[in-house]
Amino acid sequence: MSTVKVLELHQDLNADNDAIAREIRRQNRQNHTTFINVMSSPGAGKTTLLLETLRHLCPQYRIGIMEADLDASVDAERMQKAGVVSLQVHTGGECAMNADLTARALQEFDSRNLDLIFLENVGNLVCPAENDTGADLNIEILSVPEGDDKPLKYPLMFQVCQAVLINKIDTLPWFDFDCEKAVKNIRLRNPDAEIFPLSAKTGEGVNAWISWLKNQFSPNLRQE
Amino acid sequence: MSTVKVLELHQDLNADNDAIAREIRRQNRQNHTTFINVMSSPGAGKTTLLLETLRHLCPQYRIGIMEADLDASVDAERMQKAGVVSLQVHTGGECAMNADLTARALQEFDSRNLDLIFLENVGNLVCPAENDTGADLNIEILSVPEGDDKPLKYPLMFQVCQAVLINKIDTLPWFDFDCEKAVKNIRLRNPDAEIFPLSAKTGEGVNAWISWLKNQFSPNLRQE
Repeated sequence: MSTVKVLELHQDLNADNDAIAREIRRQNRQNHTTFINVMSSPGAGKTTLLLETLRHLCPQYRIGIMEADLDASVDAERMQKAGVVSLQVHTGGECAMNADLTARALQEFDSRNLDLIFLENVGNLVCPAENDTGADLNIEILSVPEGDDKPLKYPLMFQVCQAVLINKIDTLPWFDFDCEKAVKNIRLRNPDAEIFPLSAKTGEGVNAWISWLKNQFSPNLRQE
Repeated sequence: MSTVKVLELHQDLNADNDAIAREIRRQNRQNHTTFINVMSSPGAGKTTLLLETLRHLCPQYRIGIMEADLDASVDAERMQKAGVVSLQVHTGGECAMNADLTARALQEFDSRNLDLIFLENVGNLVCPAENDTGADLNIEILSVPEGDDKPLKYPLMFQVCQAVLINKIDTLPWFDFDCEKAVKNIRLRNPDAEIFPLSAKTGEGVNAWISWLKNQFSPNLRQE
């Protein structure tokens, strides 16, 4: 039996998403907590990337992770084993987290005691891009097997993120994925996005991502 | 310049989706046209699978293809080069086609002159499963790089389809994907789904999928 906590949420259609998102950011700023929203297609490697990221940030930082899924709690169980505060959120069929769902999930954490909160959003390149979750940082993972044309087909996702991680570069020999073309397509949508080619599985390229990420933390944390 | 036809659609929120879906099926039955909705995550190989499928069905059958995307028209251009009637549909930001959008797109084809119509839906495991498009067959493509746990996380998608294609099996050596576990997870969601492990790229396993597909066609076509 799993001992992981599962929160069943249902959307409040009257909630003012933008106002709630602003309030989440205000509270997190007050608590010196940085909130990071990780998005991608299903199977692009969000969980593996987060586990590899935790390996670089624990135990220096106090970390909480929200795993959002329509069903199942396999990811939260993996996170719990990695030794962080972990919460499985079921979105009640919703195709993404929004600020209302996030605010209710955040109440389950004691944010004042956390430096970093990661949200592993529902695997989807459409809805998560449309909903402000109140995060300070939006990260998109594009994996090599998906193809280099995805920024053309899902423009908003690549517009709303501060960094794009090109994941699974260890599989480049097996796929028709042109890294230069991918970077060009990302730049078309978002000239300012940081782009990190890496493999969460082998660790290649992960250091550059971690260095950049640490520089985005709340100033209080950076001085540590 | 692309010469492909692009249809810009916007959802009519008052449309009765189920009624329109039923009407689409009635008309297609009358015309002896079979309408097949192909769904998957972004980059699971819908376009490559369709191109490989066309290779087995052309010129015996008269085929039309609708390519649904939020933006871009790269897929419709590839289909046009393959010699079929091809239409790019932009969903106006909608994360999936529904029966209303499909009915309007179908008007652009002369369905009476087509035996088969394929819809390549928006790459997404959530919204397309929730919307009846009026298709006679729903097909889900699960690709090896996505992982064998996807049926646990996206239950509805695997429930609504008649067949699941496990694609990119040529990459099995490079991923931690357990085919038996994938089949077990699909069966949990849908005991009746046909399951075809294949590689649209190498052609391995494609014949079994094509044989099954031909048996689903309108009885008129099957007698040809």
